[in-house]
Amino acid sequence: MAGNETPTNGTSDRQLLLAVLPWPEEDTKPLVKGLEDEFPELEVKYIYEELAKKWDKQGQLQIPEDYIKRAKILATLSWLPSSASAAPNLELIQFFSAGTNHVASHPIYTDSDIPLATQSGIHGPQIAEWVIMMDLIHSHKYIEFYEAQKRKEWDQKRGMKVKDAVGRRVGVLGYGSIGRQVARVAKAMGSDVIAYTASPRPTPESRRDNGFIVPGTGDPDGSLPSAWYSGLEKEKLHEFLRQGIDLLVVSVPLTEKTTHFLSTKEFNLLSSSSPRGCFIANISRGAIIDQAALVEALETEKIRGAALDVTDPEPLPKEDGLWDVKNCYITPHISGVSEDYAQRAFQVLRENLRRRREGRGLVNLVDRERGY
Amino acid sequence: MAGNETPTNGTSDRQLLLAVLPWPEEDTKPLVKGLEDEFPELEVKYIYEELAKKWDKQGQLQIPEDYIKRAKILATLSWLPSSASAAPNLELIQFFSAGTNHVASHPIYTDSDIPLATQSGIHGPQIAEWVIMMDLIHSHKYIEFYEAQKRKEWDQKRGMKVKDAVGRRVGVLGYGSIGRQVARVAKAMGSDVIAYTASPRPTPESRRDNGFIVPGTGDPDGSLPSAWYSGLEKEKLHEFLRQGIDLLVVSVPLTEKTTHFLSTKEFNLLSSSSPRGCFIANISRGAIIDQAALVEALETEKIRGAALDVTDPEPLPKEDGLWDVKNCYITPHISGVSEDYAQRAFQVLRENLRRRREGRGLVNLVDRERGY
Repeated sequence: MAGNETPTNGTSDRQLLLAVLPWPEEDTKPLVKGLEDEFPELEVKYIYEELAKKWDKQGQLQIPEDYIKRAKILATLSWLPSSASAAPNLELIQFFSAGTNHVASHPIYTDSDIPLATQSGIHGPQIAEWVIMMDLIHSHKYIEFYEAQKRKEWDQKRGMKVKDAVGRRVGVLGYGSIGRQVARVAKAMGSDVIAYTASPRPTPESRRDNGFIVPGTGDPDGSLPSAWYSGLEKEKLHEFLRQGIDLLVVSVPLTEKTTHFLSTKEFNLLSSSSPRGCFIANISRGAIIDQAALVEALETEKIRGAALDVTDPEPLPKEDGLWDVKNCYITPHISGVSEDYAQRAFQVLRENLRRRREGRGLVNLVDRERGY
Repeated sequence: MAGNETPTNGTSDRQLLLAVLPWPEEDTKPLVKGLEDEFPELEVKYIYEELAKKWDKQGQLQIPEDYIKRAKILATLSWLPSSASAAPNLELIQFFSAGTNHVASHPIYTDSDIPLATQSGIHGPQIAEWVIMMDLIHSHKYIEFYEAQKRKEWDQKRGMKVKDAVGRRVGVLGYGSIGRQVARVAKAMGSDVIAYTASPRPTPESRRDNGFIVPGTGDPDGSLPSAWYSGLEKEKLHEFLRQGIDLLVVSVPLTEKTTHFLSTKEFNLLSSSSPRGCFIANISRGAIIDQAALVEALETEKIRGAALDVTDPEPLPKEDGLWDVKNCYITPHISGVSEDYAQRAFQVLRENLRRRREGRGLVNLVDRERGY
């Protein structure tokens, strides 16, 4: 009689979770420990993918072939096995990024059915803060005050052209988790919010956020917008852009249809429907905006300003003219990078491991055809 | 028979409203027109008090003595008749500032009973935005990114130390209209809010905001804070400061008791109860903070940072060391100066003229003994 002995703690019987993540192993030890404590059936192998190396194109990640072959679960920011056949046991890829367009042409994406889950939702609070911050910096003319402080200059006249957010209209192009959190804060600031989605959301049920939501944030029921717009056709987009938008939040996923979604015609529409001028914040992907058209719209003041955490290409080359176009604020794709990021991302991974163990549907699953 | 003739439009029978305000007369014409249309019994005399002149101490305002003698209502930012006897008909002074401490030693304040009303409430949205902006700029390290953009430098590592506002604690020292609007936005960002008031607020009734509230903003019922603290004694203040506050909003009015309310001891308390360090935003009056103690707390990193829209003295002299203390953000007392300011201020004036005509209690009346 074998009694109550369970083999789940024996290395050979455990399922391999391969983590290829952008934090040094020692920084995530408590998070990995929490994972192992909750899921003793897992054996975790951790590889540090140094982001700096990635951007400098120095070298390649060294991942033991044995790990790749045995991995049942892969937790990764961007690294993938060369193909599904190279990782024959893979049952779930939990990305540690909000989207998957950075791997959309990879064989794992195009030629396999391995379920892919994203971190959609965990970026909401921080990226929304980035959007709100950028909009405030521009409308409160903070850069002028910052430069005046450097010169030790007390000049009150500089403040006279500020307008607060009460009563202005915020258009959220892509009402996902980030856009919903921008909406929550914008409403609290006294602004009106209108939402835009790819497919129509006519019912309360369809307006719900079914992805991961950081507690106390977002718009779980979709009750905040005063109006909803939808449709990937240009006429539908144009109807939305004609609503007198003062702050346009670009948070649609990048797909074939949303590539250069905003170009000269769209900037002209924004300009004519919002006399004060529209401020655009892009936290999705650079290619959603036709960057040459944006530069022209900024230089001719059709657009009041633009805050870009994403550019096309990335990194933005030193010689690119975008760097010093007036009223253009650029950050190097960091709006979602946080001290809390790892912790929240592990929460989603654990949620999906729980659901997988219990045979429930996973959260934040990618629909390959839709593209996100 | 005189028929329906009413004498209210005859100049001699109308009541004089003297407006001494910081906007050129032509800029406020529509607002004055609106006032005259609603109150035909008023004769409005408008004097432009140029702020630039005031700060430079060039010259004096020229106000016809006849206006001062006849004025029943005075709308003013800071100008006052030399004494109550110089303006024997004055029945109401509607200040166009949030507080009255700039006139607290004036004979009209100390030796008369003329009702004084403030603009408390109208500054809420914009000043709250200033607080939120400053806190975000510091916690998202935006200045680093701004300087990196100038150098056309794409460096993602810079973003790794950012923390968002979810779950952190905001302490509002002085839960008035500005603090309430900060609370509204902070709650939307996922933060916890605790409130501090001079007198205890144990009942729902006592927690209400009875002043002017810009629609769609603030915390009219006082329902947002998770805990309330009160008392002007140091022990009571210290209890509040021991609650692990991550962002401390200084929005108490300046009175004798709140002068140097925050000094070395208080910064030490904040430091020991909040390991990450507290960020302080002062939008009230400079003298509430012991500035020398603040400089020391910033230099020794007991305090994570400070955003000051008010300093002691003002304007801050060019040679003052405060200008370039690290993690200190200074703006020249402009957080409440807005394009919308005049419009909102006239709303309050009209509200009080309405209440006065109907014999109802005025909004935003100053309690001279309390000091605000």
